[in-house]
Amino acid sequence: MSEVLSSGLGNPSSHIHSAGVAAGKIIDEAREKTSALIGASPESVIFTSGATESNNLAITGFLKANPDFGFVCSNIEHFSVLNQIRSLRDNEVNTAVLEVDDYGLVDLDMLEKALENNPAIVSLSIANPEIGTLQEIEEISDICRRNGSILHSDATAAAGLIEIDASKMGIDLLTLSAHNMYGPPGVGALYVKENIRLASIFEGGNQESGIRPGTENVPGIAGMGEACDIIKDDIKSHRDRLKNLGTDLWKSLEESVRFINFTGHPEKRLPGHISFWVEHIEGESLLLLLSMNGIMASSGSACSSNLKAKDENELMASHVLDAVGVPSDICSGSITLSAGRYNTEEDFNYVKSVMPGLVEKLLTMSPSYDDYMRNKETTDG
Amino acid sequence: MSEVLSSGLGNPSSHIHSAGVAAGKIIDEAREKTSALIGASPESVIFTSGATESNNLAITGFLKANPDFGFVCSNIEHFSVLNQIRSLRDNEVNTAVLEVDDYGLVDLDMLEKALENNPAIVSLSIANPEIGTLQEIEEISDICRRNGSILHSDATAAAGLIEIDASKMGIDLLTLSAHNMYGPPGVGALYVKENIRLASIFEGGNQESGIRPGTENVPGIAGMGEACDIIKDDIKSHRDRLKNLGTDLWKSLEESVRFINFTGHPEKRLPGHISFWVEHIEGESLLLLLSMNGIMASSGSACSSNLKAKDENELMASHVLDAVGVPSDICSGSITLSAGRYNTEEDFNYVKSVMPGLVEKLLTMSPSYDDYMRNKETTDG
Repeated sequence: MSEVLSSGLGNPSSHIHSAGVAAGKIIDEAREKTSALIGASPESVIFTSGATESNNLAITGFLKANPDFGFVCSNIEHFSVLNQIRSLRDNEVNTAVLEVDDYGLVDLDMLEKALENNPAIVSLSIANPEIGTLQEIEEISDICRRNGSILHSDATAAAGLIEIDASKMGIDLLTLSAHNMYGPPGVGALYVKENIRLASIFEGGNQESGIRPGTENVPGIAGMGEACDIIKDDIKSHRDRLKNLGTDLWKSLEESVRFINFTGHPEKRLPGHISFWVEHIEGESLLLLLSMNGIMASSGSACSSNLKAKDENELMASHVLDAVGVPSDICSGSITLSAGRYNTEEDFNYVKSVMPGLVEKLLTMSPSYDDYMRNKETTDG
Repeated sequence: MSEVLSSGLGNPSSHIHSAGVAAGKIIDEAREKTSALIGASPESVIFTSGATESNNLAITGFLKANPDFGFVCSNIEHFSVLNQIRSLRDNEVNTAVLEVDDYGLVDLDMLEKALENNPAIVSLSIANPEIGTLQEIEEISDICRRNGSILHSDATAAAGLIEIDASKMGIDLLTLSAHNMYGPPGVGALYVKENIRLASIFEGGNQESGIRPGTENVPGIAGMGEACDIIKDDIKSHRDRLKNLGTDLWKSLEESVRFINFTGHPEKRLPGHISFWVEHIEGESLLLLLSMNGIMASSGSACSSNLKAKDENELMASHVLDAVGVPSDICSGSITLSAGRYNTEEDFNYVKSVMPGLVEKLLTMSPSYDDYMRNKETTDG
């Protein structure tokens, strides 16, 4: 990207002068590398400003071009998907929100029922970033195909951690985010399967086959292509390594951290991903202590962590935790630890070694834990 | 930007851990620098993926939040503005497209008439990139204010070349594009005056005050801030220098290039900007010859240069040239030479020295010129 930035970049649409032609070549190359990551042809990849735009383009763009379709998603999707419901209902689109089970999995029978005689664009992410659960995408795509429906899948949390082949998995529209797979922020892509009609959601020029107007983010796109190219070949080995380290960390924390409650599916989950909440302690306080100890965790999705509660006294619960039945009266915030290819066994061991102590420290400061212990003593006594 | 890219960037929404906080600070700083360029407060600046998105957000976002307003623009606006007409009409918004005069200027009486008893969001760019004409923005903003209307102005072609003070100029919504003022592509901003209500056009997270969801393009935003900071202090001196060089080049080409026709206003134009077409020759051929001689010109806006004609035999005329009355039967493409702060007097002299010869070369190859000469000889004879 630095090379591209210092190369005296032209506008790729200026295809007559040399600087424009060079910029066009950079994009072509990045499109090849990005499409190769998901086993797709270069023409099927549209570059966007990121996952949020890709999700909006996939859903609004598809429904604009295919107004007879309905819309189905789950209740743990990202807000860029879930919040489409409001405006779609205003526009009299048939919509359905599927509830997930306590592991975060979509009920396949419910999906089948929702689509029967109601062809829809179904938007279900491959992996949930907050609780790590991997949907049964191949079964889901079978159901979509059998019912004349279209599957859009947000691969933001999954790409780079597990292998994704859009056509093998039966995905018609696939969202990619560069910065979630070691590329730069501000750039993403939408895979659009051949023959899927899509309208643009911006008015403007004719860039990206007319689907995504606006001068291309050439350095960002170059960075996305490079990231895809770098990670492409050894996703499987990192996946296996991280899966083992994650399972091991889960077991260790289960034994060493009192009052811990894991979220998401224990096996069908992102490799190296651990998510949990601890009774009696505030998730945010634990996040802070972790940060002070060099561990950058998050409380669910980074996008929702900016949401302010309407009432200062009432913290806004994550819609994902609500959906998987985490009791909001005793859970005050969850922790997501997501690992990647650059995390080592030492990193996992470090988390193992510090987490129990940090939780204990917070427990000693917790009024709720204090009450609990008093009650316990009374009962025991 | 390279520094930001190699700094182990966090997600600005992750405001609890250190990498997230650092990214947030980079954005805050860039927001201050960007707002300072247009004499605005930092809170009034929303970062976007570029001018196309800013224009879409300004118009669609304003009309979503203010459904009683109409929409008015000119017939030489960028497609990201002009093409809004189609969907707005579908949504029963009152729309009017103002025709410009042969210099590309909006008729102020027509604007006043269009707004009388019809409050609207008026979208008129400060400068037209293809013909260089500068609108009379202050007079326009007076008319808007008097008629309870809102002025959106696309400053993409103007920012960095002339001084822009949004509040002094009476602009309510202002589009900025980073790459058009020495910053990177893929990032832009929308200035939103205090108390102007705007809805987001994407569903998603709560970034950019909820107006522009999606993880921020931190390196791009940093680059935009730096660009604004670098150019801020000496815009005026470069403007004066370029204005003189442009006027001088105009005069020189007027005398030395046969069959030349200038487009746009001779005085009310971007400093250093020259646009013209030449009878008997193809604009695209001249572009190619210029490129071979190291001069990167364009045929109007780069965004429209990708447009393909429906019929291979019929080249698509620029809507801007049509609007200013360029006769499509004898004009086969125009040339835009836009200069900036890094262009020197030598650059202008070089254009002066090679342009006449290149045009003469193309004239000798032109069947139309051949016909013209034959006719002339016959008439003269």
